[in-house]
Amino acid sequence: MEHMSMNELMRPCLEDCQNCQQLCLEMAMNHCLETGDRHVEPEHFRLMINCAEICQTAANFMLSNSPLHAAVCHACAQVCDACADSCEQIGDMDDCVQACWQCAHSCSEMARSLDIAQPVMGSQEGQSARSLT
Amino acid sequence: MEHMSMNELMRPCLEDCQNCQQLCLEMAMNHCLETGDRHVEPEHFRLMINCAEICQTAANFMLSNSPLHAAVCHACAQVCDACADSCEQIGDMDDCVQACWQCAHSCSEMARSLDIAQPVMGSQEGQSARSLT
Amino acid sequence: MEHMSMNELMRPCLEDCQNCQQLCLEMAMNHCLETGDRHVEPEHFRLMINCAEICQTAANFMLSNSPLHAAVCHACAQVCDACADSCEQIGDMDDCVQACWQCAHSCSEMARSLDIAQPVMGSQEGQSARSLT
Amino acid sequence: MEHMSMNELMRPCLEDCQNCQQLCLEMAMNHCLETGDRHVEPEHFRLMINCAEICQTAANFMLSNSPLHAAVCHACAQVCDACADSCEQIGDMDDCVQACWQCAHSCSEMARSLDIAQPVMGSQEGQSARSLT
Repeated sequence: MEHMSMNELMRPCLEDCQNCQQLCLEMAMNHCLETGDRHVEPEHFRLMINCAEICQTAANFMLSNSPLHAAVCHACAQVCDACADSCEQIGDMDDCVQACWQCAHSCSEMARSLDIAQPVMGSQEGQSARSLT
Repeated sequence: MEHMSMNELMRPCLEDCQNCQQLCLEMAMNHCLETGDRHVEPEHFRLMINCAEICQTAANFMLSNSPLHAAVCHACAQVCDACADSCEQIGDMDDCVQACWQCAHSCSEMARSLDIAQPVMGSQEGQSARSLT
Repeated sequence: MEHMSMNELMRPCLEDCQNCQQLCLEMAMNHCLETGDRHVEPEHFRLMINCAEICQTAANFMLSNSPLHAAVCHACAQVCDACADSCEQIGDMDDCVQACWQCAHSCSEMARSLDIAQPVMGSQEGQSARSLT
Repeated sequence: MEHMSMNELMRPCLEDCQNCQQLCLEMAMNHCLETGDRHVEPEHFRLMINCAEICQTAANFMLSNSPLHAAVCHACAQVCDACADSCEQIGDMDDCVQACWQCAHSCSEMARSLDIAQPVMGSQEGQSARSLT
């Protein structure tokens, strides 16, 4: 019954996404709002909320064993990268920086490994890449 | 800085919601869809997806330290109750039954304890209860 | 094939929830963050984000024709009520106040009508109400 | 106050995402579950649910005026493409096919236009593209 649950190779990335979602949302809605000042600067705060949401969506794609989670993980990695940078610049948010880097790394790996493993996804990526250049 | 993170009294309920969300979504999208038959019966499958979503929303309310999470936990408890019953009738879903009962119990407690602790919420409940009868 | 789409009686409430979700999220992430000051006061901003999320969940319950959407609409009405009050106090957010009141009203009606129509839900409500007092 | 609401150039894509989210979720949870048979085949049904979720997330990124919505729109376009194909093969789902194609097209355009307009995003895209090959 190995097909009855999500692909276990995704489990570490799933956990990184869940951890990052939780940390970004909790930090934004508590630490950032209570501290104010640079912590509620629009670009930074927006990234925190956006990062939580794409992590949640990436996690849900993995939980549902979607073959297209690579596409979502690719997007998630970009948002986590940007959020980690923003948190580092603001300062005083080391846990968040760490969780975002970790999630960005996992998601990039996930997207890459599946890109190799799944020719169909690979060609879709290629097609989309063409349409974007 | 005690106000800088979510209320730690919510942490166990948060974890029950996260666990229930994960289990319901993973089971629905893998075990239920692959098994088919009674597992994709509309009423049951709908409950699985709905349960995952309200658990996610309840978790996010708690992460954001919302004083109104009691209202969402109240709704979440009802959906988890119904989902546990449905999973029990379908059979072969013991983990899900367990997670739903656990979450229903935590959410009911959470709603009750905060109803007592927060007069403002209590009066809102009362007001809404009036408007619903 | 009348059972093949959501119950059309829910359509107006669905639209109010979608409208309120959109307005609260857009206002919070643009107007409030850009304006700063009282607009990013924790209690207010949290409500805006929470309101958007419960409206989205209520909408998704209705789209999926869930018999338990009454429980979620009940919670949604309470959050929208509180968000409307908060927006009114902050000022300069008339569209948001209006959308929140409208959604609170629709959701209360939805919860009430189904409370009458569905004895099972009614008894669950009663049970939960008891457990909350 | 032009920066106080989302970029109006995103509005048509936002509406396509919202329309696609609504149609996919409503069709999956009603038409597909009630019809059963090929409509609840795992790969197809999973795509319907996944498509609804990424459309919702893309819409929320646009509502919050996120500069990273291009990354999410890119992923959304791929999921919508796959969902349209799947719905076409299943048959009897013309509205869904149409909404998915429309959303895939809008999201591809959105990703491309911003890729050109925003060198920063462009370099991130390039970096990620490198890491994926």
